Amino acid sequence: MLAHELQHKIDFKTKPLGALGFLEQLAHKIGMVQQTTSPKLIKPHMVVFAADHGIATAGVSAYPQEVTYQMVVNFLGGGAAINVFCKQHTIQIKIVDAGVNFDFPEGLDLIDKKVRKSSRNMLEEPAMTIEEYQQALENGKSVVKEIAETGCNVIGFGEMGIGNTSSSSLLMSQLFNEPIADCVGRGTGLNDAQLQKKIEILSQVIGQHPNVKLLDEIVQTFGGLEITQMIGAMEEAYDQNMLILIDGFIATVAISVVWKKNPEILKNCIFCHVSDEYAHIKLLDLLDQKALLNLNLRVGEGTGCALAYPIIQSAVNFLNEMSSFEDANISNKE
Amino acid sequence: MLAHELQHKIDFKTKPLGALGFLEQLAHKIGMVQQTTSPKLIKPHMVVFAADHGIATAGVSAYPQEVTYQMVVNFLGGGAAINVFCKQHTIQIKIVDAGVNFDFPEGLDLIDKKVRKSSRNMLEEPAMTIEEYQQALENGKSVVKEIAETGCNVIGFGEMGIGNTSSSSLLMSQLFNEPIADCVGRGTGLNDAQLQKKIEILSQVIGQHPNVKLLDEIVQTFGGLEITQMIGAMEEAYDQNMLILIDGFIATVAISVVWKKNPEILKNCIFCHVSDEYAHIKLLDLLDQKALLNLNLRVGEGTGCALAYPIIQSAVNFLNEMSSFEDANISNKE
Repeated sequence: MLAHELQHKIDFKTKPLGALGFLEQLAHKIGMVQQTTSPKLIKPHMVVFAADHGIATAGVSAYPQEVTYQMVVNFLGGGAAINVFCKQHTIQIKIVDAGVNFDFPEGLDLIDKKVRKSSRNMLEEPAMTIEEYQQALENGKSVVKEIAETGCNVIGFGEMGIGNTSSSSLLMSQLFNEPIADCVGRGTGLNDAQLQKKIEILSQVIGQHPNVKLLDEIVQTFGGLEITQMIGAMEEAYDQNMLILIDGFIATVAISVVWKKNPEILKNCIFCHVSDEYAHIKLLDLLDQKALLNLNLRVGEGTGCALAYPIIQSAVNFLNEMSSFEDANISNKE
Repeated sequence: MLAHELQHKIDFKTKPLGALGFLEQLAHKIGMVQQTTSPKLIKPHMVVFAADHGIATAGVSAYPQEVTYQMVVNFLGGGAAINVFCKQHTIQIKIVDAGVNFDFPEGLDLIDKKVRKSSRNMLEEPAMTIEEYQQALENGKSVVKEIAETGCNVIGFGEMGIGNTSSSSLLMSQLFNEPIADCVGRGTGLNDAQLQKKIEILSQVIGQHPNVKLLDEIVQTFGGLEITQMIGAMEEAYDQNMLILIDGFIATVAISVVWKKNPEILKNCIFCHVSDEYAHIKLLDLLDQKALLNLNLRVGEGTGCALAYPIIQSAVNFLNEMSSFEDANISNKE
């Protein structure tokens, strides 16, 4: 049985039993996903979905909406945090326009999956129509399908979208029946008064859509275009049997949606970091998952995945490269 | 003022203020050590000091003493965990025989700094004579002096020595006046009865040496040859203004000794991981330090440093490579 063979291989490496801690669990998980005792990480990719949010104009973020497109330009120019970390670890980066409120010029290295310019304002109507929601899911899947054709077997997802922590908080609240105040954080840096205002606005949004119960309806009503594309992308990544690297709060909300439909997906997921936002910590608890890194990050963009990647690679490397007690003629425990 | 310039450079990178969390503190620290806003990590080295312990024969470890030399051979053959992780991150690895109870053949890639074959049995006499203790400190310094000549500015220290958690627990207990039971862990994997026996043996050792008060006396009496060489090596690394990467419990005990003489050394230190041993957690608290990784590692060898290294590199990279709000024409916070 593979699970047993993997554990035996891990246990007989030249180290005290269990002494590589979390790396041993990772190695086992990766081996199980790839169905081998000698797994390999091939052509790692990071996909960053960007979109704007109708709710952003209501004052839920510390930054103006134009920052979304400006950051996309920054990604394309290689100057953002995610660029630096992906370059460091030779992770291919793909930027997807899922619904940015801007007309980008032709000829950029940007994957055009724009469903519409910005989601709709949830204070007035659902964030997406049914058609827009389904299109967004499909668009996300298609991005991953194309990447899978390159042979890639490990993929991380990042996001950029001013206002998208609001959308994520609403989704968390609706998915897990948690009070909105427990699902809201300071995002990119709200002060106390701004945080209070954010909670009030999101409570209004919930009041506006009282009869939303089904999973698809919840995402259509409260989701964002980048979050929905990420959900589709995660589903496709699972269908392609890739390892799925989960970044911060927003990506964790996206995987929670998929998990509600298919709990098996967690077998393929590596939770890369936990931010210092209470809602993210709580959400990981709800999923019963432990994150690799705890560095007080709150950048998004997939930065937690990129920073954790070398440690995931280390898990694979020790499994493949360390000698065993037998190989090295070392006395095992007395 | 450099501290201010560094903070300004960090704050105006294209990310929310403070959003790179611990990486921002690291970048600032490294900039201050190197006295520049554009620091570089040059020729990273990992030095693994190996030695045997007289106390090992008393039954304080789950493994027999011969494992020390067998693991040294494993290091030289490239098959241990530290080899795999150093190779992954292009960290030069140096193995030092600080006092292994074995005659190694000639011609190995092993730095011979053997003071004697194994420290003395602390149940009967101090672990080292004054001369042996001083020789060990000097030997450790000399290893780092030679490495510094290559231009290396970042160095991590690992250890191998069956019985060396016992020596470390004794040192912690004496340095911080803590009950020995609070300083003892399961090392490489003791069960409850073995742990109880370890505490009893170490209590006996303390009873054997009632009048040891001075710092040098404490290390001479309760230290190990690899721990003492590590102490000398850390002192030299500070004199060379290197960044000093601190691994697990044993390395943290070694830096605590240096810190007692020179608290300034912590400015150069990066604490790479915290193990799940209570004593290590407590020791980091006593030093008021937070570790980068928390992966339940308990291998030693410097593995925590090697695994943390890419994240330290990421801190330097974001500082040097990310664009600023001005460069990228991005609107800052409203």
